[in-house]
Amino acid sequence: MKERVEKIREGDEREIAKCISLIEKNGGDSYSILKEIFPYTGNAIRIGITGPPGAGKSTIIDKLTLLLINKGKSVGIIALDPVSPFSGGALLGDRVRMSDLNLENKVFIRSMALREGKGVSRFALDAADILDASGKDYVIIETVGIGQSEIEIAYFTDCTILVLSPESGDGIQAMKAGILETSDIIVINKSDRPGAEELKKDIILAFNLSGKEVDVILTNGLKGEGIENLMEKIENFIKKQKIENRFFQRRKKVIKERIKKIVFSKIEEEIEKEMDKDFILEKMVEDIYNLKYSMYDAANEIIKNFLMGGKNE
Amino acid sequence: MKERVEKIREGDEREIAKCISLIEKNGGDSYSILKEIFPYTGNAIRIGITGPPGAGKSTIIDKLTLLLINKGKSVGIIALDPVSPFSGGALLGDRVRMSDLNLENKVFIRSMALREGKGVSRFALDAADILDASGKDYVIIETVGIGQSEIEIAYFTDCTILVLSPESGDGIQAMKAGILETSDIIVINKSDRPGAEELKKDIILAFNLSGKEVDVILTNGLKGEGIENLMEKIENFIKKQKIENRFFQRRKKVIKERIKKIVFSKIEEEIEKEMDKDFILEKMVEDIYNLKYSMYDAANEIIKNFLMGGKNE
Repeated sequence: MKERVEKIREGDEREIAKCISLIEKNGGDSYSILKEIFPYTGNAIRIGITGPPGAGKSTIIDKLTLLLINKGKSVGIIALDPVSPFSGGALLGDRVRMSDLNLENKVFIRSMALREGKGVSRFALDAADILDASGKDYVIIETVGIGQSEIEIAYFTDCTILVLSPESGDGIQAMKAGILETSDIIVINKSDRPGAEELKKDIILAFNLSGKEVDVILTNGLKGEGIENLMEKIENFIKKQKIENRFFQRRKKVIKERIKKIVFSKIEEEIEKEMDKDFILEKMVEDIYNLKYSMYDAANEIIKNFLMGGKNE
Repeated sequence: MKERVEKIREGDEREIAKCISLIEKNGGDSYSILKEIFPYTGNAIRIGITGPPGAGKSTIIDKLTLLLINKGKSVGIIALDPVSPFSGGALLGDRVRMSDLNLENKVFIRSMALREGKGVSRFALDAADILDASGKDYVIIETVGIGQSEIEIAYFTDCTILVLSPESGDGIQAMKAGILETSDIIVINKSDRPGAEELKKDIILAFNLSGKEVDVILTNGLKGEGIENLMEKIENFIKKQKIENRFFQRRKKVIKERIKKIVFSKIEEEIEKEMDKDFILEKMVEDIYNLKYSMYDAANEIIKNFLMGGKNE
């Protein structure tokens, strides 16, 4: 174990990859590693990058990463992909990207499957801890789509960036999904497409109405335009957060949320086990289907049994 | 209470609205009503309608509802809206629609806020029970967006319909989000727009590859085209499910999932209370932030305390 932790701290890519796979496969058994590396975490700046498919997140992350490397920084990237039997393979296909660049210990990229119904998976946050402990200066967590994972990401990073493109109503979708207000910086990518300036104005107006301050900037990821500005905005945001003591408040909130996440998922595991035991549930379902008994009665009984089970431990 | 249940069974709109509000506000206190009405549920066919914003779900639901009413059926509609401080009002704005039509006891429409991180809210399912007990022949649950709520809805209805439009890459988004395979009928709306036929072919191809059978149909909601075909497909789907005994299997699965949902949300409530007690969590967070102690240790301690608490009850 000690050797393992040592290797991670030295940034050994194979060891990092192995540990993340372990985390991905089996939350439970990886706790010991996570506990061991825990004292070495907390140094990396964690950035969340989110937005609908096709907005250009990957390109922006690539360009941002190159910029950071040129500044002498190292970067870890975790890309959360929704799992689909139809497209799973294809989605992961375009992730090879930067790992081709042979940047040695400067960049580590990893795709992880976004578990259905779990939002920003606990496992992705654990993987970010590994990258943090491995000495990466920045850890970027990328999520795809408009939905829960995008809203959630803001709770788990130091700075959240929303990437939109002027086309296809991304802006309206984002407003509807309620993810504007959880973003710290909003990037309108593909600035050369029609509607970019207009979308920027609309978003600034929406924020003015809400009273929250936010940076809204234009980029052109493919041409690399606006990336330095974005980097500057990120640095300024972090600096300001630190001066105003909000950086640490936010990190404490993250810790709180992560504890809850661990507690809930462990208890859920336990209850699932309990519920599958002795076909208790099957019998209940039968009775409920025949309207003999309500779901609320069944739930109460299961909770009582679960807590009684705790008694005998 | 008896009078209340009686009124709901008679389809009293004010009573139904009051009960749903109670459910929305306070899961706990509404259990007694839900338990009372439970024996009168199970008759309505539950249809889930999902898809990205702008695909035309509302129009299709309106037209489908009118068709059902003309056939002498009654319909309850629950529209789940994501909550956003920016757009909340506007989103709900266009829901007045059918309730204007003065269709008396034939239609009941209700918007509910989609609770962050809860997927298809337990409360929406409870509201569907109220509408079911009130004698509605069909209960339609509408969700917006591409994400967890769309995947989840399939688990809680008798038939799930995905509405896409040919524009703005809806099809690709849907494939990426993994919601194609949880749909029973796929509607490509705005059939007069370019790419409609192509999208249909792509989706059929994707399903052929996966081996799952599905109906993919074109509609034009605004013109009312294809709605009768959609209704026919729904009826055939339900009929086939019943003949092959899958209808009841699916309902039993729904019951199982709903029990789990009730159990988890009750236990989460309890744990949240436990965690907020005596500032236990605050102290833990402080220690974790100072790297004295890991989140995994904290989680274990909380679980132990929670189960010990159960001991003393």
